[in-house]
Amino acid sequence: MKKLKRSARLVEMTQYLLSRPHTVIPLTTFAERYGAAKSSISEDLAIIKEVFEEGGSGELHTLAGAAGGVKWIPKVSRELALAFAERLSTQLAQPDRILPGEYLYMSDLLGQPALMNEAGKIFATAFGNMDIDVVMTVETKGIPLAYATGAQLNLPVVLVRRDHQATEGSAVSINYVSGSHKSLHTMSLSRRAMREHSRVLIVDDFMKAGGTVQGMIDLLAEFNATVAGVGVLVESGSVDSEERLLTDYISLAKLTAVDAKSRHISVKPGNYFDL
Amino acid sequence: MKKLKRSARLVEMTQYLLSRPHTVIPLTTFAERYGAAKSSISEDLAIIKEVFEEGGSGELHTLAGAAGGVKWIPKVSRELALAFAERLSTQLAQPDRILPGEYLYMSDLLGQPALMNEAGKIFATAFGNMDIDVVMTVETKGIPLAYATGAQLNLPVVLVRRDHQATEGSAVSINYVSGSHKSLHTMSLSRRAMREHSRVLIVDDFMKAGGTVQGMIDLLAEFNATVAGVGVLVESGSVDSEERLLTDYISLAKLTAVDAKSRHISVKPGNYFDL
Repeated sequence: MKKLKRSARLVEMTQYLLSRPHTVIPLTTFAERYGAAKSSISEDLAIIKEVFEEGGSGELHTLAGAAGGVKWIPKVSRELALAFAERLSTQLAQPDRILPGEYLYMSDLLGQPALMNEAGKIFATAFGNMDIDVVMTVETKGIPLAYATGAQLNLPVVLVRRDHQATEGSAVSINYVSGSHKSLHTMSLSRRAMREHSRVLIVDDFMKAGGTVQGMIDLLAEFNATVAGVGVLVESGSVDSEERLLTDYISLAKLTAVDAKSRHISVKPGNYFDL
Repeated sequence: MKKLKRSARLVEMTQYLLSRPHTVIPLTTFAERYGAAKSSISEDLAIIKEVFEEGGSGELHTLAGAAGGVKWIPKVSRELALAFAERLSTQLAQPDRILPGEYLYMSDLLGQPALMNEAGKIFATAFGNMDIDVVMTVETKGIPLAYATGAQLNLPVVLVRRDHQATEGSAVSINYVSGSHKSLHTMSLSRRAMREHSRVLIVDDFMKAGGTVQGMIDLLAEFNATVAGVGVLVESGSVDSEERLLTDYISLAKLTAVDAKSRHISVKPGNYFDL
């Protein structure tokens, strides 16, 4: 690459860093890329770090020593995350979302890539300091959220299927009881999909009693894998405490009431904001 | 926001633009955001434009007049797209991907968010000049690709289900014949998911004879919607031309042979590179 002026280099480096979250980039990579001295690169990075961190979009970690470099850690400030949860809650409370069986129509929201990416960035903030190998979800509606989270954390996504698919090779299947209906279902994961002893972040769009998430946790045991965390976009608060299978999770929004008769829905920010 | 030096402003503006593809941003937004004169903002944008366009990561369009502003159009150069397709082809040709029935295991590749985002950016390059309202896919494996494409084009994603789900409300169902097995399947789309007369970009991970994509096209007719384009990550070239249901699509990789006996797989870059 030809030598760039500082102004152009700042634009290029910003673009380079933003597209590589949670990745260590040695200073020498930049120095060679731009034909610049490491001292100039360090000055550039100080400017970028200040803008990123003051703007609340994340942290630029500097790693000293032989493996010296920088790592971009995208984060969402508590203030912006809460604003997101409040907007989401308002949208979820629209009365025309109520479906027969008191289900809530959410596909229009789940279908917005920018909204999913924002939620994924909040999960990446919540779980970014943990030792995680993969993000896991079960088909179907949690998939965009799992990929958004995986992209921000620079982690692969493992997809649990409802049925055993010919395109997955040999798989491990388990039965689980879904809390909403207390009915028995099957989920399966390809043997090839995950290494043994992986540390797994489970992500889903919606959780009621937690049966589906508990199913994924049971499936992890078959791979000698462990849960590093559980994040759901929306939880239903209308569950008796003795019915709830899971207590250790974070949610971004909490559905506290759905009344089909009065067409009233109550939603508030989730337990992520309780602390 | 406090006044920023030019260097800091360039970093901030770069970050702002990159997170808002295919979105018109008026110059006044930047001028107010940074308390700077429009002439200074224009100079900044000229620097950013040059870096983006020379680096081959996209185009920064300038819109003159009262609605004056800029629009960031992410693009992948033909050279980088071909390099991507060649890497993908090499990975797909690994012999241990062959599954019973001559299916190919692809979930490890589809599980990499960064790889999906790169493919999505290539689709956004291919279809970015077209008039499109939504990106559509059918569950399950094409979902990350559809979201990656939707994110780059700033478009919502519409998800066709294999079964009618309680969480989707009233839906339109159709039957379709899947080319691989000539067997009859059902797919359905929520009535609420898409406006009538939408222009739709169909995205999927794999296409053989095209039965599944043809199913989605048939479903569009029920919504008085039209196909704006079809993009698949991998197509199977081992289809007789009279069996192929669809001819107007782009693919990024083409599977030309899978031989379970010799454990040989041939893959080459897709028809996107034929021009």
